[in-house]
Amino acid sequence: MKTIKIKAPATVANLVCGFDVLGMALEHPQDEMELTLLNKPQLIIQHKDKYGLPTTAEKNVAGVALLALMKAYEKPIGFKVVINKIIKPGSGLGSSAASAAGAVVAANKLLKNYFTKNELVQFAMFGEELASGSKHADNIAPCIYGGVCLIRSNHPLDIIPLKTPKLFVTVVHPQIEIKTSEARAILPKEISLKNAVKHWGNVAALVAGISQNNPEIIANSLRDDIIEPVRKKLIPGFDRVKKRSLTVGALGGGISGSGPSIFMFSTTKKIAEKVEKEMIEIYREFNIEAKTYVSKISKQGVSEV
Amino acid sequence: MKTIKIKAPATVANLVCGFDVLGMALEHPQDEMELTLLNKPQLIIQHKDKYGLPTTAEKNVAGVALLALMKAYEKPIGFKVVINKIIKPGSGLGSSAASAAGAVVAANKLLKNYFTKNELVQFAMFGEELASGSKHADNIAPCIYGGVCLIRSNHPLDIIPLKTPKLFVTVVHPQIEIKTSEARAILPKEISLKNAVKHWGNVAALVAGISQNNPEIIANSLRDDIIEPVRKKLIPGFDRVKKRSLTVGALGGGISGSGPSIFMFSTTKKIAEKVEKEMIEIYREFNIEAKTYVSKISKQGVSEV
Repeated sequence: MKTIKIKAPATVANLVCGFDVLGMALEHPQDEMELTLLNKPQLIIQHKDKYGLPTTAEKNVAGVALLALMKAYEKPIGFKVVINKIIKPGSGLGSSAASAAGAVVAANKLLKNYFTKNELVQFAMFGEELASGSKHADNIAPCIYGGVCLIRSNHPLDIIPLKTPKLFVTVVHPQIEIKTSEARAILPKEISLKNAVKHWGNVAALVAGISQNNPEIIANSLRDDIIEPVRKKLIPGFDRVKKRSLTVGALGGGISGSGPSIFMFSTTKKIAEKVEKEMIEIYREFNIEAKTYVSKISKQGVSEV
Repeated sequence: MKTIKIKAPATVANLVCGFDVLGMALEHPQDEMELTLLNKPQLIIQHKDKYGLPTTAEKNVAGVALLALMKAYEKPIGFKVVINKIIKPGSGLGSSAASAAGAVVAANKLLKNYFTKNELVQFAMFGEELASGSKHADNIAPCIYGGVCLIRSNHPLDIIPLKTPKLFVTVVHPQIEIKTSEARAILPKEISLKNAVKHWGNVAALVAGISQNNPEIIANSLRDDIIEPVRKKLIPGFDRVKKRSLTVGALGGGISGSGPSIFMFSTTKKIAEKVEKEMIEIYREFNIEAKTYVSKISKQGVSEV
């Protein structure tokens, strides 16, 4: 019986102006997962964490991703999966993506890389569909490819890995609940062409800044007048976090995925830690429990441990 | 009396999915211009071409650009300007931008580079305002910087020069008239968020493709479901040009600026010439006179000759 242990990184989707098309992997937090290859078509899921997630394959994000992979494999196989979830569900840090991506990458390693990365992303997207109702790849792709990924299109799937800028990321996760479905429901259906042009100027500049590893261009492009003004209302303290992060030297940042987590880019670890200190203080002021992380962008996606 | 001769390149704005934010310089056609520095605040404009453009400074695009530059200079100066326009006005190939940019770059060379490139773009934008009613930089910036430029924002002006992909450009200019004002009036005021996301995925991918000099990414990203469907109706033969260009191997392309010119990218000169042949044939079928160009992307903007 072959067994493998992997770690699956948290991911930040959207990156402010890259709504629905950009995502990046973090060095931590990372989920831990252990997969064992079985010779019969069976899926056993166990959790070592306290989150009480479903263990029925069809109701578990790692489960549905693995079912899709098993269906595409040449002969009947199964897996025993033991998940130790470190990335809190509902944090906006790609918790469901880490489960789904971690499971299929681990399975593929047990199958001697039978599937391509692109196929793995497609299997894992079934997990996102289960978790949020839509098959999006902006967390899955960076979780599997690592670094910063551009998802030009979900259907057909077109993933463009970008360079990994040498930046530090500070994340704060205020412990409040935002439903992805709610965060999506409040978005405008229509936007002005003028605002759209401004927005695609920024996302184009962000990709240029990342490609040129140019912090100034990155800082100037981290703007969003379309999604952020609507969604930030769901996150107490958002404006204060942004303002004070910029004051202590952050390049910029915004909502991670659909929130409630907020991320900020900095050029040095020292600045990133100052940002963290501000974040902790702000949520103490708000009397909201908050967890923070300081991390580099992870060049690697799901990795064997 | 100091005199200088320069050439100012034609430019292609928008680049399909980069509406209002991307532009590139071509190796030809290029305007020719001769400037002489005068010691008094006087502006003499002469034309060596047949287009009958105004020679009053305030009504001439090179004139208003130079007036802005003269106003910003430390002491009273003037210029004599002789323009030989090669880029036909109203072609959609940045004819007015070439006049305005050519004039201010030449003037700045006579003034021993007193002004920065960014300042020159701002002076030249007065020419665009005169020509089209709006101060945009998507032709001016590449005309001055060369290569492919991203204009993240017009106000404040933020120009990001990108890498110059090793591609050939075929341009056809069907000799019909499209007013920039008309081409702008037919644009939608509002677009769906869904279409906008698709669009910024493409423009982000185009910048990634250019940065990585990757023809496949460039080809996949040259899509536009917002502007092109509306504007192409003003250009007879547009769909046929696009279809047959792709058939003979072009990567893709679309309307140059607000038209009527159409441009296509190819990876080799041979393919670019096949595309040219198709374009010529199509407008012969339509019985519309057409001028074609095969060119590389020019790394250089306005240059001394």
